[in-house]
Amino acid sequence: MLIVHKYGGTSVGSLERIASVASRVEKAKKEGNDLVVVVSAMSGETNKFIEFAKHFSDNPSKREMDMLLSSGERVTASLLAIALQEKGVDAIAMTGRQAGINTDTMHTYARIESIDPSAMQSEIDKGRVVVVAGFQGINKDGAVTTLGRGGSDLSAVAIAGALKADSCEIYSDVDGIYTTDPRIEPKAKKMDFISYDEMLELASLGAKVLQNRSVELAKKLNVKMIAKSSFSDAEGTVIGEESENMEAVLVSGIALDRNQARVTIREVADRPGIAAEIFTKLAEEQVNIDMIIQNASADGTTNLGFTVSGCQSDQAKAVIEAFDHDIGSMDFDDSVCKVSVVGVGMKSHAGVAATAFTALAHEGINIEMISTSEIKVSMVIAEKYAELAVRTLHQTYNLDA
Amino acid sequence: MLIVHKYGGTSVGSLERIASVASRVEKAKKEGNDLVVVVSAMSGETNKFIEFAKHFSDNPSKREMDMLLSSGERVTASLLAIALQEKGVDAIAMTGRQAGINTDTMHTYARIESIDPSAMQSEIDKGRVVVVAGFQGINKDGAVTTLGRGGSDLSAVAIAGALKADSCEIYSDVDGIYTTDPRIEPKAKKMDFISYDEMLELASLGAKVLQNRSVELAKKLNVKMIAKSSFSDAEGTVIGEESENMEAVLVSGIALDRNQARVTIREVADRPGIAAEIFTKLAEEQVNIDMIIQNASADGTTNLGFTVSGCQSDQAKAVIEAFDHDIGSMDFDDSVCKVSVVGVGMKSHAGVAATAFTALAHEGINIEMISTSEIKVSMVIAEKYAELAVRTLHQTYNLDA
Repeated sequence: MLIVHKYGGTSVGSLERIASVASRVEKAKKEGNDLVVVVSAMSGETNKFIEFAKHFSDNPSKREMDMLLSSGERVTASLLAIALQEKGVDAIAMTGRQAGINTDTMHTYARIESIDPSAMQSEIDKGRVVVVAGFQGINKDGAVTTLGRGGSDLSAVAIAGALKADSCEIYSDVDGIYTTDPRIEPKAKKMDFISYDEMLELASLGAKVLQNRSVELAKKLNVKMIAKSSFSDAEGTVIGEESENMEAVLVSGIALDRNQARVTIREVADRPGIAAEIFTKLAEEQVNIDMIIQNASADGTTNLGFTVSGCQSDQAKAVIEAFDHDIGSMDFDDSVCKVSVVGVGMKSHAGVAATAFTALAHEGINIEMISTSEIKVSMVIAEKYAELAVRTLHQTYNLDA
Repeated sequence: MLIVHKYGGTSVGSLERIASVASRVEKAKKEGNDLVVVVSAMSGETNKFIEFAKHFSDNPSKREMDMLLSSGERVTASLLAIALQEKGVDAIAMTGRQAGINTDTMHTYARIESIDPSAMQSEIDKGRVVVVAGFQGINKDGAVTTLGRGGSDLSAVAIAGALKADSCEIYSDVDGIYTTDPRIEPKAKKMDFISYDEMLELASLGAKVLQNRSVELAKKLNVKMIAKSSFSDAEGTVIGEESENMEAVLVSGIALDRNQARVTIREVADRPGIAAEIFTKLAEEQVNIDMIIQNASADGTTNLGFTVSGCQSDQAKAVIEAFDHDIGSMDFDDSVCKVSVVGVGMKSHAGVAATAFTALAHEGINIEMISTSEIKVSMVIAEKYAELAVRTLHQTYNLDA
């Protein structure tokens, strides 16, 4: 079997942790597998570099930031290769460039355009474990690029796809994907399997275990991902294609995203293009919009609601205020959260949303905004009800069974 | 003018120091110069990485060490470029690879084979300051290589040569080359000029300001080096070709190397090839020999003396002991030092050596070994006399005049 391992920042957060990762890799190799190991920077390093750069500039150039930030993963990769070699495991460290990872030119948030796996394959053929610095690639100008936060997951999946690996094991400090956050609902259960689509919804809705873009790519390339803990030997959660002959689970998990702010714009002039203007301007200012709700117009004006990440709420506010001639008033609420019910089974079952609304109403929780997709229902509620809502929904759909 | 600056570890040892370097570069740029700036890792970083690697292995693989060690310079280069940009100085950071530095495959002690300066030149033509991560290059396999301790000096000189720069200014925490170590002889004077050959002798004899290989390369490429302090505005020392119409200075400096051990092998079998065998074996064990003295044989055996760096004395001892059938006894002395008189004027003047011997004899200092070249006389003496010998010779040749 050819397996890709990926170890995140806490899994390689100290020299002792790197030694422990080396033992885990050694074990997998001795079981007869071929291995590529993708590593993140030691936890704290990336933030340290960002602090360093901020000492000089509030808005450091992205090209230079990429050269700076990519150093951390190189350090981990070199050290892990050295640790493996000392155990008698033949290993070679590679940078993103050496591993053949080619990206576009969008510094600090580059997209992988192609992977030339020949250098990795040639080392694998020699029986070597290939240790790759994650999070980074190289663009057509030869400059180092990075793939954005969580980018090492993306490196791992892309490499697994390029090498046609049997699986891509993502190691972190949690041992899999849970039906909801166990810190909120102790009865949360670890799932053995979750489909790509469900995982995508959960990840975009606040589950932090896997980077969303990596799940998208895994789905596209049909890479079997396994979320595991590097701190235990527990079985992880497999993320894969839902199988035809599998009875689709109605609801697989409840996600919570606390980091939300709700913006409601009242009395928006009901003329064509006004919404487009507002959201174009928000996009230009790099404000990421999540849910958007517009009610049908009644009296010549309409109300427009949307949510943004809490950390971008000031930017959003500034953009909207510039539209003062076309809007009535703006209502802004930082103390909201988004709770979501996710499950592929919803596709073929009506009533999942209604069950959720009823359950929350029963607890006296008011739903401020609703947004649905084929496999999820998201509800914006007051943040003070966050835990209660999660536990209520978890129980409603029998997820602790 | 096109000028290459190089800043060593203490010159970029903190964020404040990097900011200070940025101001210095800005000033030189505003004076109308084109600039390439080569930087070392922040002081302490390289040693930290070495400690990290030693946690895993006493003998870590050199290829992976190079990937690890090269990270430090990349961090400094990125940060300096960001600091310059913030000042409104257009700047771009480059790794050794991006700067076109191609080396052989000898990891941790690679030699520069060629430099393709086109990428740097193209940025210079755009009016940009090019900030290059020193100490590193890339080999034909695409692996990162490093150039050995002090390798950033070598990067700077090689780049200056490839770009036909007007000068290569090497910044450190000392403001030039002195007639001897001012900590030993307070009357030591800073030289305005020293020839490549003299600098080579001084550097190889213990003066730490410039890396020896960089001076060799500067001589070969005829690059004008200037040793300066990044902590002051003092004029530095120019290292260049001795000019024909310049009256050669008889003696330009006194060097001291404390880190020496003397080995004397008595009653070596006087058969052809025995010295070759001993020194081949020492070379195989990577023991660097400095002076070698063999006296004419008298009674069928001979005495063979040589010096090694103090840190390699145990290795040397082990090698010699393996020759027990061919040698009588070994005499080993760790408490010696080497004091050297250097000057191009010696080439055309007799008596310099005799003057040195007389001066030391006058102070009751016994000379254990002597070795001479065209432009230097080196003497091994008991270490306790080190400072006295340096001051005596400094005065004898009127260097404080």
